[in-house]
Amino acid sequence: MFTKEEIAASYREIQDTICKGLEEADGSAVFEEELWTREGGGGGRTRIIQDGQVIERGGVNFSAVHGKLPEKIKTAFGVQEEDFFATGVSIVIHPKNPWVPIIHMNIRYFELNKQTRWFGGGIDLTPHYIIPADATFFHKQLKEICNQFQMNFYERFKKWADDYFFIKHRQETRGIGGIFFDRLQPDNSMLSYDQLFDFSKALGKNFVPIYAELIKRNQKKSYTLDQKDWQFIRRSRYVEFNLVYDSGTKFGLETNGRIESILMSLPPQANWVYNHQPIAGSEEEKTQQLLKKGIDWVKDLG
Amino acid sequence: MFTKEEIAASYREIQDTICKGLEEADGSAVFEEELWTREGGGGGRTRIIQDGQVIERGGVNFSAVHGKLPEKIKTAFGVQEEDFFATGVSIVIHPKNPWVPIIHMNIRYFELNKQTRWFGGGIDLTPHYIIPADATFFHKQLKEICNQFQMNFYERFKKWADDYFFIKHRQETRGIGGIFFDRLQPDNSMLSYDQLFDFSKALGKNFVPIYAELIKRNQKKSYTLDQKDWQFIRRSRYVEFNLVYDSGTKFGLETNGRIESILMSLPPQANWVYNHQPIAGSEEEKTQQLLKKGIDWVKDLG
Repeated sequence: MFTKEEIAASYREIQDTICKGLEEADGSAVFEEELWTREGGGGGRTRIIQDGQVIERGGVNFSAVHGKLPEKIKTAFGVQEEDFFATGVSIVIHPKNPWVPIIHMNIRYFELNKQTRWFGGGIDLTPHYIIPADATFFHKQLKEICNQFQMNFYERFKKWADDYFFIKHRQETRGIGGIFFDRLQPDNSMLSYDQLFDFSKALGKNFVPIYAELIKRNQKKSYTLDQKDWQFIRRSRYVEFNLVYDSGTKFGLETNGRIESILMSLPPQANWVYNHQPIAGSEEEKTQQLLKKGIDWVKDLG
Repeated sequence: MFTKEEIAASYREIQDTICKGLEEADGSAVFEEELWTREGGGGGRTRIIQDGQVIERGGVNFSAVHGKLPEKIKTAFGVQEEDFFATGVSIVIHPKNPWVPIIHMNIRYFELNKQTRWFGGGIDLTPHYIIPADATFFHKQLKEICNQFQMNFYERFKKWADDYFFIKHRQETRGIGGIFFDRLQPDNSMLSYDQLFDFSKALGKNFVPIYAELIKRNQKKSYTLDQKDWQFIRRSRYVEFNLVYDSGTKFGLETNGRIESILMSLPPQANWVYNHQPIAGSEEEKTQQLLKKGIDWVKDLG
């Protein structure tokens, strides 16, 4: 069985690998690092990449924090324990070209005591323009990783992502979803803690190959100013989701996390257009119509 | 004693007056109106002004809604009643020129039954660049209005605004504050319901004269692209406040209000810059340093 230190070390290594891979995929920009410590205990390494050939801004954040759980979170978690340990890697990439999708990944481990320990995380994709073949590729990759660990994971976690990455007040999904899971333990996964740890690492290791492929497919496509404007609108929905619903963001803000690391997920620029309606029959409308739950992307829809 | 219909009619009239006044102050753009009805009961008139000489985008929203209170809000309000009536006027103006401040006003009336009725609202100013003389003018005007009704209102409501318009995770105020009040009743105000209604109307009527003066003072000032960038950053803080903390926004999202009317408060464009720090001694830093609670703006600091 792993220790807290081992899991943190492993996540730190995953951060290194991902940053290296993203720099290669971008081909021009490099990450800048900021080390920070948390007043209540622990700290992290925030790495930001900006103004690249592909990436407009992206962040790959590692943190390992510990301390006392705020009352509000204890209530939300339904626990009595005070002392928590949490470590994880969080990524959000906002690409320059609207044909390249926004991607998010998070893997995390949370521990209150010997009994209360769980893994959480997920990967989801937010294309500004949904390309069915890319969506199918993305979901197939995730399904393959899941299947290496537990045959019901993909179906379960795909549905979970549909429900989680949902902008309720807009009645639309953030993007095409992916997988999402939380509080994963032997009890509810039929896997040992070590296997769950391996699953978590597998997601981390597969992140770059998956995203690099999506970059390769789309980075050279030309785009218009109107398409860039559409990207700014889609990004404003991303902001709405993250600030109104995202539980990682809420957890961070409520545990006095490092603000700039938590809000690195927000885009460099977002626009709100009053009452925006895509033109009938346009690419924008096609994307809008696909922002809903329950689409089976693994069946090729392209 | 006024009826629900009278108060709604009066707020509707205030919306008309304000729109007319803002069109004059802008000098070029005109409002477009959207009438909407709410599934649960009631509706409103949303008016948007865009791409003016002064105003980049602004909204003046009137609504009068009724229906069943969601469980979540009942708990938050600590009430048992189901049926509510709420009417109000809400304004947010995002000017083009960063020297002209963002302004927000809200006046509202809420009724559950004969006993549970209250007025709420406020006016607050969010300058991208704080000009002490303008801040003093703004607060003096608010104090004068307050003093016509109750001598302790300004002090009480100024402090309330400092506490309310506070971006906790940034440990900074949204702007220079103003006044904010909620659940105002005869019990806690020493005024009759009719007097409270008059106070609410007085705020509505004084909105345009106050903002028009601030426009007049600043609209002709030239600005650089760097100053526009600073405006986009200040606007992103505005977005953070509205989506994370603003109770009007939360109430709207949770009662299935009309999304485009609720989120009209969000700016046309907002930028997030990782770890942005104003240059030492710059105008931006001076503003940043004044974003704190407890400044007595009525004492001339200019």
